[in-house]
Amino acid sequence: MDPFMKEALLEAQKGLEEGGIPIGSVLVHNGKIIGRGHNRRIQKGSVILHGEMDALENAGRLSASLYKECTLYTTLSPCPMCSGAIALYGIPKVVVGENENFMGEEELLQSRGVTIDVLNDHNCIEMMKNFIHENPILWDEDIGE
Amino acid sequence: MDPFMKEALLEAQKGLEEGGIPIGSVLVHNGKIIGRGHNRRIQKGSVILHGEMDALENAGRLSASLYKECTLYTTLSPCPMCSGAIALYGIPKVVVGENENFMGEEELLQSRGVTIDVLNDHNCIEMMKNFIHENPILWDEDIGE
Repeated sequence: MDPFMKEALLEAQKGLEEGGIPIGSVLVHNGKIIGRGHNRRIQKGSVILHGEMDALENAGRLSASLYKECTLYTTLSPCPMCSGAIALYGIPKVVVGENENFMGEEELLQSRGVTIDVLNDHNCIEMMKNFIHENPILWDEDIGE
Repeated sequence: MDPFMKEALLEAQKGLEEGGIPIGSVLVHNGKIIGRGHNRRIQKGSVILHGEMDALENAGRLSASLYKECTLYTTLSPCPMCSGAIALYGIPKVVVGENENFMGEEELLQSRGVTIDVLNDHNCIEMMKNFIHENPILWDEDIGE
């Protein structure tokens, strides 16, 4: 498994152990993780701390030029909010664990010049499928449905 | 002045008094403010707490159906991240204080069925113009440039 996706998956699993929604993300610059996080809807009552947002927030304030050399790894296809954050900061590449359980704004990001690499990793797929099956109302809340 | 835009402007001014970036927002449901906030980049070292995001976060976890009856007021045209959050939660209407100092993703939101009402209020315009003039580097950081 891709070593950075493995770290994003570990973040997702940490979220699950905390009773949260299992979506994890890491922000990578020059082969090094500079921010990591996971969805905190349950843990912090947050409506904005999706996994990708948490990773970006934990990376702290960075220069615009640095974002433009980063790759964001996320276990699940990025929703409109997280895709907007990727677009805002000009992150040029996103590696997606899977888009079978949820298809985010991949087309929009691609139209803005972002490279999207979808792994459809079976660990990511199974984890999310099980969570959605067991927590359909919570999942709907997280994606505004 | 529109009473809700006035409240968003008060939030922006509060941010300015705190040494922050003066962008404020309120989330309104059935004529009542249910969330309010302002940009917290400086105050909290946050890269995700734009004014609109702070207002949504402070409103807390809401049902999908409630978001769909809300109007979001913001002193400045919403950036890609905040527009993505508006799209995620299906907020149907956004009232924008001004889009002269910064043009956000208004076209994208409109293409998704969101009603955008731009006031181009002179208080909002002057406040932002002065801030950008005095803090160009900080402003560029906030919009990923």
